[in-house]
Amino acid sequence: MPVDARRISATYRLHVSARDGKQRAEQLALEQSIEMPAQSVSDPLVLHEMAAHVEDVTSVDDATQVARLSLSAETVGDDAAQLMNMLFGNCSLQEDVELIDVDLPAELARLWGGPNHGIGGVRNRTGATDRPLTCTALKPIGSAPQSLARMCTVFANAGIDVIKDDHGWANQRSAPFAERVRACQSAVRTANAGRRVGGAIYAPSLYGQYEQMCEQTRVARSEGVTMVLIAPMVCGVATFVALKREFPDIMFIAHPSLGGLRIAPPALFGKLFRLFGADAVIFPNHGGRFAYSREVCRAIAQNNRQPWHGLRATLPTPAGGMSIERVPEMVGEYGRDSMLLIGGALLAQPEGLARRSAEFVEAVARASEVIPV
Amino acid sequence: MPVDARRISATYRLHVSARDGKQRAEQLALEQSIEMPAQSVSDPLVLHEMAAHVEDVTSVDDATQVARLSLSAETVGDDAAQLMNMLFGNCSLQEDVELIDVDLPAELARLWGGPNHGIGGVRNRTGATDRPLTCTALKPIGSAPQSLARMCTVFANAGIDVIKDDHGWANQRSAPFAERVRACQSAVRTANAGRRVGGAIYAPSLYGQYEQMCEQTRVARSEGVTMVLIAPMVCGVATFVALKREFPDIMFIAHPSLGGLRIAPPALFGKLFRLFGADAVIFPNHGGRFAYSREVCRAIAQNNRQPWHGLRATLPTPAGGMSIERVPEMVGEYGRDSMLLIGGALLAQPEGLARRSAEFVEAVARASEVIPV
Repeated sequence: MPVDARRISATYRLHVSARDGKQRAEQLALEQSIEMPAQSVSDPLVLHEMAAHVEDVTSVDDATQVARLSLSAETVGDDAAQLMNMLFGNCSLQEDVELIDVDLPAELARLWGGPNHGIGGVRNRTGATDRPLTCTALKPIGSAPQSLARMCTVFANAGIDVIKDDHGWANQRSAPFAERVRACQSAVRTANAGRRVGGAIYAPSLYGQYEQMCEQTRVARSEGVTMVLIAPMVCGVATFVALKREFPDIMFIAHPSLGGLRIAPPALFGKLFRLFGADAVIFPNHGGRFAYSREVCRAIAQNNRQPWHGLRATLPTPAGGMSIERVPEMVGEYGRDSMLLIGGALLAQPEGLARRSAEFVEAVARASEVIPV
Repeated sequence: MPVDARRISATYRLHVSARDGKQRAEQLALEQSIEMPAQSVSDPLVLHEMAAHVEDVTSVDDATQVARLSLSAETVGDDAAQLMNMLFGNCSLQEDVELIDVDLPAELARLWGGPNHGIGGVRNRTGATDRPLTCTALKPIGSAPQSLARMCTVFANAGIDVIKDDHGWANQRSAPFAERVRACQSAVRTANAGRRVGGAIYAPSLYGQYEQMCEQTRVARSEGVTMVLIAPMVCGVATFVALKREFPDIMFIAHPSLGGLRIAPPALFGKLFRLFGADAVIFPNHGGRFAYSREVCRAIAQNNRQPWHGLRATLPTPAGGMSIERVPEMVGEYGRDSMLLIGGALLAQPEGLARRSAEFVEAVARASEVIPV
């Protein structure tokens, strides 16, 4: 899809009749830009340059039209939050509108810049150079730091690459951030001690606003942490971008929490999270606790990885009720450049944690042997 | 609804059959708290204290159940973002779930504290002591600061109480934040000069992350600004709460942008925005460009204003394609303690701006004469 150097392309599904499609698209274009009737604008330059334009409207069926709009890059400036505002701010409140795709000028893509590390960076850090990565989560909330640290030891010894906090971890009294990070990172460091390169990564979950997150990241970094978990739709995408810029040495794994707007997951998790700087993106895989279709999941992974304005690729991380039994299928589906996240299933019986973690790692190794290079 | 001192009450509409209601509610309780199967939790205290509990499930019809859950306050800590996470983070990705109501212990309500000023504060500042307030918006994006300042002069001279930036204003080149604020605030100050008390307020729109918003608020305050516009779902609710605490002298008008999750508007805009500190809340009125029902709008206004844990009341601000012709109906509907926002309709013809602004102010004054005290 060709993109004007100063215009952002946004594609919407409109749940209106074919007869109403064009008019609805024109209304949407005003809603998402100048927020006033076109005939009331006295300056023709504002109408031409600032208003969103309807590029085309195609009919899918009697009740669904697809409208492609172009938004002025000037209305967005350099603020990621403002991009969200312009793409889907007001129309998030209009139930007949879904945002299904977005593209933007190379200049804007370079401005936000995408991941600082990307798939290659995560591979370098873990030493997992030629297979899908493995990831798990520390739970449940309420556990004490020492208990979480013991889990870290088991996971790291089993060979799991990324051990992340559940996204529900913040600064709870049962495991305050600094104490939790120190205990978990120390456990992972000890487990990695015998390795010459790479090893498990512990990724703590950030909470609060930008200043707090900066402080948390500094605390974590001082303990040796190299990756953090962030939920961009909870903290705001501007917070995420600013953090990525402030800490270019840190890797970010993005969580989809609160991302259930009517923005198609391949656009939100596949493209926008990558654009803003996610080195890995967690999303609910089909067939688990969430109802995403196989096609949606494949499209997320595709958008995470395909060439796009020279941005580094993001590691697609399917999750959400996955099991060791499904590893071969998931590896077959997502290929080498992915990370499989299994959380609760490893914890099914506390006494079997080490065994099940090892089985997970082995299942990924076995399944990846048969992926064509 | 009685609330346990340490538990948050969250009510969800589940789009499942009556037969599946109980089980779906139990799954949801785990999803929104410990994120693992209950039988895998080895510590009974975690299960009892940290997991969300299903309090009751009632059947609305064959395909709709209403489940009331209680969430542990301990899982939320003192972080507003974490409250959103726990209320609707993961389940925002599950289309069969809507969050329809929320209540919380008085202790937590006091922690976030609600508006610093509330309806009384906005009345004091504007001098509009005994009638609905009037509000309008500066548009379109692309206008130069001097052009916006001229609009401010016209609006303020016409007697409009609150003149806010469109929520699309950030730091665009056509009207950079500091320059825009200086020009607009100066125009409003000049227009107010003859008054002994009160007068029009100019409320600039904040953008970016917390640190940027603090800087913008300082710049605005140094020019004499007393109110700012913020979109909590765009910047993140933790950013909003922190800002409200950092600037107790500033009033906040909250914009609903990006708020179109499956959270009922009376819960999100009516209660949560109030809880986090909105002195006024803008929401799409029925019969305009948005499809909210009359009942939903009334419920938002009710939740903004009714007694709730001693929090100050928030000024409900219906908007979104309103017209001067609808003022009597809106005043009748929302009563004295409300603010009517008319933007685009005042701008219909640039040469009629002063006349239409005066008509708006007069219409509100006339309509408010007949409200029973």
